[in-house]
Amino acid sequence: MDWNPRISHLECIGCGARYPATTLMNLCPVDNRPVEIRMDLERLVAERPGLAWYDPARRDQWRFGGLLPLDVTEAADQPYIVSLGEGATPLLDYRNHALAQLGGFELYVKDEGKARADHGANPTQSFKDRGMSMVASMARRHGLNRLAVPTQGNAGDSLCAYAEAAGLQAVVAMPEDTPLPILGRVAALAHGSENFHLVRVQGTIREAGEALKHDWIPNGWFSVATFQEPGWRIEGKKTLGLELAEPAEPGGQWCLPDVIVYPTGGGTGVLGMWKAFAELEILGLIGPRRPRMVCVQAAPTAPLATAFESGDNDTRAAAAGQTLAFGLNVPGGIGHARVLEIIRASDGVALAIPEAEIQAVFRSEWRERHGWTGPEGAACLAALPRLLDAGVIRPRDRVVAFNTGSLEKYLPDLRHLL
Amino acid sequence: MDWNPRISHLECIGCGARYPATTLMNLCPVDNRPVEIRMDLERLVAERPGLAWYDPARRDQWRFGGLLPLDVTEAADQPYIVSLGEGATPLLDYRNHALAQLGGFELYVKDEGKARADHGANPTQSFKDRGMSMVASMARRHGLNRLAVPTQGNAGDSLCAYAEAAGLQAVVAMPEDTPLPILGRVAALAHGSENFHLVRVQGTIREAGEALKHDWIPNGWFSVATFQEPGWRIEGKKTLGLELAEPAEPGGQWCLPDVIVYPTGGGTGVLGMWKAFAELEILGLIGPRRPRMVCVQAAPTAPLATAFESGDNDTRAAAAGQTLAFGLNVPGGIGHARVLEIIRASDGVALAIPEAEIQAVFRSEWRERHGWTGPEGAACLAALPRLLDAGVIRPRDRVVAFNTGSLEKYLPDLRHLL
Repeated sequence: MDWNPRISHLECIGCGARYPATTLMNLCPVDNRPVEIRMDLERLVAERPGLAWYDPARRDQWRFGGLLPLDVTEAADQPYIVSLGEGATPLLDYRNHALAQLGGFELYVKDEGKARADHGANPTQSFKDRGMSMVASMARRHGLNRLAVPTQGNAGDSLCAYAEAAGLQAVVAMPEDTPLPILGRVAALAHGSENFHLVRVQGTIREAGEALKHDWIPNGWFSVATFQEPGWRIEGKKTLGLELAEPAEPGGQWCLPDVIVYPTGGGTGVLGMWKAFAELEILGLIGPRRPRMVCVQAAPTAPLATAFESGDNDTRAAAAGQTLAFGLNVPGGIGHARVLEIIRASDGVALAIPEAEIQAVFRSEWRERHGWTGPEGAACLAALPRLLDAGVIRPRDRVVAFNTGSLEKYLPDLRHLL
Repeated sequence: MDWNPRISHLECIGCGARYPATTLMNLCPVDNRPVEIRMDLERLVAERPGLAWYDPARRDQWRFGGLLPLDVTEAADQPYIVSLGEGATPLLDYRNHALAQLGGFELYVKDEGKARADHGANPTQSFKDRGMSMVASMARRHGLNRLAVPTQGNAGDSLCAYAEAAGLQAVVAMPEDTPLPILGRVAALAHGSENFHLVRVQGTIREAGEALKHDWIPNGWFSVATFQEPGWRIEGKKTLGLELAEPAEPGGQWCLPDVIVYPTGGGTGVLGMWKAFAELEILGLIGPRRPRMVCVQAAPTAPLATAFESGDNDTRAAAAGQTLAFGLNVPGGIGHARVLEIIRASDGVALAIPEAEIQAVFRSEWRERHGWTGPEGAACLAALPRLLDAGVIRPRDRVVAFNTGSLEKYLPDLRHLL
């Protein structure tokens, strides 16, 4: 079967080297930097004029059909697509939040951790499902059967769900101290099926990655670690940006918020959203204006904030700290140079939030709203006072903060704060 | 080392056959019924007059020192005792509960699921910890190393915690559909250590028991299934009754509530509390009056309620139903005849609560109080209107309902109700 002809090629985000659309690769062999999938948008416009590439009635991320490397509206692509209802998550109205009232801005929270009571929820209650839905689908497209991922938890949980749905095998490496709702779910899957393997490491996602490189990748397991896939997880995370821009009602105006506050570990979501905006501009749906991109980190492990403040172009290898925002305990990343470029190009900022502030906001979110905001989402809300002071958020701005996962995924570790 | 001389002997609750205190056995070989540990209370009174057997300053169940088969105040027993802070749980004041106000009775909830923010909490957030603390301790006393338990979930979770603390090995058999916070925790333990084994079955605790009988017990694993231990879990659960009777302040009056509303699966807690009351009477701390014992079951699987209504002396093998009150999905039990005797002797009742009522009360408990009442506890609260109507609860009664575990142990299965 022919590949989707609207994938133009793969392109290194560093040196710009190009590879055929069908190449199965990890990093660019020229400069060891990530590659992205380039869509042939001229062809898309010609073949699918207006919004013919888009199916707003569909309640998952695949409704952005023609803009994605597998197009759910094409019979040839459909057999590969593994959907568990990911995406189409709610944008919660936080306009009555005290700080939003005080600062005179409009605040919304994109809730990627919503429970699955109905449509519009990620199946494993984190934003990782967007990327892993794409990973499982592209793996099937390439005929891959064995996938490997190092993780702080949520990406591994998500890969397992999609691998199980897709009939693929997976090995997941994660820190020994990963919260039990995640570690236990993967352990239960590995206990019950030979298709799943759990590797536990001392350390963080970094040591998890080393373990896979040593014992599994050489034996034929394909790495779908952050930025290694190639470009697949960015395409999934791209739908975060597409959803932010998407009109609330069909026929409405596509438009972007003024500020995006995003809890950033590896940074796939930042690259994905930025790519979404570029593509929407080429399609003529938005103009050149971009949101100020704010990357929030937990102070114990904040390589992006450190590099941003120092004016550096990339992060340096750092020791991992300890934070209850487990998803943010990411001491380095192959895509961090690009994240820093995007922050600066957007007039944004990278911020380190002290652990005590994250925990205080996490606790008050629970007590005041009885919502299920996770600690990474709490970190974004905790960033707001600094962003106001620094003028990154201004009166009348429309601000979207991300809650990237539900607190219940870390519950035993957070219960004492509730 | 000599055994605690205040253990008189083991005694079958059916035929009354007696066995030496140090016997390692399961059911009574004469009539296949459970045995209980009989304490030599005359000797206790002689050796530890007044309350000298009791250490109210100690914040775990072992404070009932001389009344337990291992006495934490005796140097000879101390090395065997495995305590993780179990027991001493809070009695929540529910006097403002709408139905208590309406019916003019005093309502309290004994919260066995409290999170471990400080003292007075069960380490795995269920009442099973009382029995399993005793199991691990008595196993060490007997020099046993390998323990086997079939479970609806919580007992297995608890055994693992105590076996790990005690350096023992454990095999846990549980239903395949056990909620993931429990199944996953045991799976993670089994994945990380050769001392732990997880067996998953289709069905309930009954099929779990069959699996162990077939594959594990013949190979030297000692069964600590309900009533098989011998009598150990009853001694742990006995502390439920001791705590209900215990004065709030040292020097106060020991006294019992008028009604106890208890979610009943196998019924160890009912036998344990009843035994506590008998012992306290012999010690002269309470009189012959007993609380009306109410055993609450979930209608989908309610062998005790069925037998009680039919006037039968024992339950019959029944098909298991489906209930979100997982701990109550117990289709039969070797101790049910004794539970029925106790209910009747106390002028109590066994009740089956429809699943929809359990779920409605579970949901309203969460929404109104934002507490962590589990579905078994919700079943007890759901029973109150019927108990009022039936005159089992009367005006001015002091009523204690049990919440036997925290909802978070079943969270993924209950999340849609919150």
